[in-house]
Amino acid sequence: MATVPLPANPEADARVRAVFDDIRATRKTDFINNLWRALAFDPPLLERTWADVKALMATPTLLDPLTKEMVYIAVSIANACSYCVHSHTAAARAKGMSDAMHAELLAIVALAARTNHLANGLQVPLDGAFDAAAR
Amino acid sequence: MATVPLPANPEADARVRAVFDDIRATRKTDFINNLWRALAFDPPLLERTWADVKALMATPTLLDPLTKEMVYIAVSIANACSYCVHSHTAAARAKGMSDAMHAELLAIVALAARTNHLANGLQVPLDGAFDAAAR
Amino acid sequence: MATVPLPANPEADARVRAVFDDIRATRKTDFINNLWRALAFDPPLLERTWADVKALMATPTLLDPLTKEMVYIAVSIANACSYCVHSHTAAARAKGMSDAMHAELLAIVALAARTNHLANGLQVPLDGAFDAAAR
Amino acid sequence: MATVPLPANPEADARVRAVFDDIRATRKTDFINNLWRALAFDPPLLERTWADVKALMATPTLLDPLTKEMVYIAVSIANACSYCVHSHTAAARAKGMSDAMHAELLAIVALAARTNHLANGLQVPLDGAFDAAAR
Amino acid sequence: MATVPLPANPEADARVRAVFDDIRATRKTDFINNLWRALAFDPPLLERTWADVKALMATPTLLDPLTKEMVYIAVSIANACSYCVHSHTAAARAKGMSDAMHAELLAIVALAARTNHLANGLQVPLDGAFDAAAR
Amino acid sequence: MATVPLPANPEADARVRAVFDDIRATRKTDFINNLWRALAFDPPLLERTWADVKALMATPTLLDPLTKEMVYIAVSIANACSYCVHSHTAAARAKGMSDAMHAELLAIVALAARTNHLANGLQVPLDGAFDAAAR
Repeated sequence: MATVPLPANPEADARVRAVFDDIRATRKTDFINNLWRALAFDPPLLERTWADVKALMATPTLLDPLTKEMVYIAVSIANACSYCVHSHTAAARAKGMSDAMHAELLAIVALAARTNHLANGLQVPLDGAFDAAAR
Repeated sequence: MATVPLPANPEADARVRAVFDDIRATRKTDFINNLWRALAFDPPLLERTWADVKALMATPTLLDPLTKEMVYIAVSIANACSYCVHSHTAAARAKGMSDAMHAELLAIVALAARTNHLANGLQVPLDGAFDAAAR
Repeated sequence: MATVPLPANPEADARVRAVFDDIRATRKTDFINNLWRALAFDPPLLERTWADVKALMATPTLLDPLTKEMVYIAVSIANACSYCVHSHTAAARAKGMSDAMHAELLAIVALAARTNHLANGLQVPLDGAFDAAAR
Repeated sequence: MATVPLPANPEADARVRAVFDDIRATRKTDFINNLWRALAFDPPLLERTWADVKALMATPTLLDPLTKEMVYIAVSIANACSYCVHSHTAAARAKGMSDAMHAELLAIVALAARTNHLANGLQVPLDGAFDAAAR
Repeated sequence: MATVPLPANPEADARVRAVFDDIRATRKTDFINNLWRALAFDPPLLERTWADVKALMATPTLLDPLTKEMVYIAVSIANACSYCVHSHTAAARAKGMSDAMHAELLAIVALAARTNHLANGLQVPLDGAFDAAAR
Repeated sequence: MATVPLPANPEADARVRAVFDDIRATRKTDFINNLWRALAFDPPLLERTWADVKALMATPTLLDPLTKEMVYIAVSIANACSYCVHSHTAAARAKGMSDAMHAELLAIVALAARTNHLANGLQVPLDGAFDAAAR
């Protein structure tokens, strides 16, 4: 169950309808996943969120689409967002992530978490060599 | 300041010396950053940590080296590990991450954090379409 | 499922009964939500937790009740506590949070998460102007 | 030290200059804090971030300005963003947060963190009464 | 539902079979919990994860087995890993954790979270007395 | 720098003085660390925080004092509270934590973080065997 009612007919609202139409056209699918249905309870929030997701994740940019999905999954795991891990793993799979790539991604995320906790436990001081100003 | 004393002469210990030699040979540099110096307070922990970092991050695997560093940075940001953000940003830079790639990485990490918090705030229910068993 | 059995008849214990009576009287409702039922497995932990929640959240203080619930929701989202997001969203609704206020709260939480990740990714140094000692 | 060089003369870039001018005009101050100076390394990221911060935090909306800052602080504490805690505490102070309000905010954030950890440790099941669909 | 299909017959793979046999022999039980079944989608990841869990958690070391499980639970709560909280609470119970010990563990975790948020909200500066180099 | 001014003479306030006296008497030391000095900006918050820390961490309870400090460190690492990691590592050292115990604690915390991220990445479903109601 969600903290807002998932509307039965969200596209009765013209602003929601426009966003959903754009999601379908951009992603070339009729499937609108529940994040967008939940956000439909507030059309301005829905519009702004989709605009930014579209600009970065559904538009060609410098990084390739699969790399972007893997970074997204990594953050979602660390932030313990169950919904986001599921939705972006499905997206990465659709963009070509194989079992072996998935396993390696998880291994790197887990290794990073491990050394994050070691470094935070040791409170390791910064090395001068990391200073961006000295590059 | 760290929670363990950074040893003045860590390589007096033969096990530490062997790990540091391997770090230098693997990375083709004389620079040993402070995480390894701090871990030298316990040679077995140092050995195990380096073995796993080497196997995944300093050995050719399925994902390319820069993608792996960017995933590592993403997790480190979400886990608020200041040291790790610095060390892996420096590593990513050394492997070719440009200003524009860095900016895009940060933009994706920030977008993921934003939708992570939206989805956790809305408690969005999972879509059946995400079910891996149904692929 | 919980990590402790939810007791079938928690109020058989006199200390639990006293806390539950106070929850009902304070909140003017017969409804005791599951957090309290689960905490009933250890009456002292139940008593201390309720005493502190009551003092801050069920007693008039400096901040108004709805602001307090919104701050509570914000923390619960960032800490990925699904139960707490649900329970405090329900409480905020009961205290007058409208759809538009809920949407704005989520937008601010998401914006904060976004700039938190940007600032942690950039490792932005503190400005001297923020120094409380200089106010 | 930051992970990007803080530019000596960021306003040599016309896009950066335009954003900084807008920050000064909007906030009615000459002070540009380091987050914006750091973001100046990528003008598009700077523009998008400021546009969203301005729309939500520097424009009248439904919630009052001080409530918004307190929610922002709460998220920043939970996400362990040191820079953001400092900058938004300074902003909340400038908008009228007294010592007593600050103390109460911290007390609520700490109480929420405490029950977040209790609920996640107990894995408390959701109550049907929280269902938004049943409101 | 998981992000990988839980294989119907994971032990058809000889490497998976060897790990599962070792889990059964080490733990003296036929029960293989779902984490290992899910990891079976990538035998090398399964092997490395089990090797490290076995070395630290299923082998006598300096700290006693129950203390290790309680530390594990504490981290899992703070990282909001629902599965891990359940599995390690069950393990701690099997190793002798009573209701009263469980309640005290949760009380300490909650107290730590509370002062973590207070200290991060106050941005308390380090005391020189904590310096490990001065011990 | 902190988000509140550290008062030059906090014990001029009688309530602060009483708490500081109790800290000194309880801990048998003249040293008052900065968390308490910072909390002195709001005597009620100082009183409540110290009362709860004293009851759980400075009073004999079921768990031994060193185990309690190690659990506290584990949570503080996962929550990225730099101050708390330092203060509780110093406390654990004072209560007898050796280098080897410290290293093992960090290894367990890091292992837990690693499997937390694996389980959250795989979204492993709960095993029925973990059900507390079935014990």
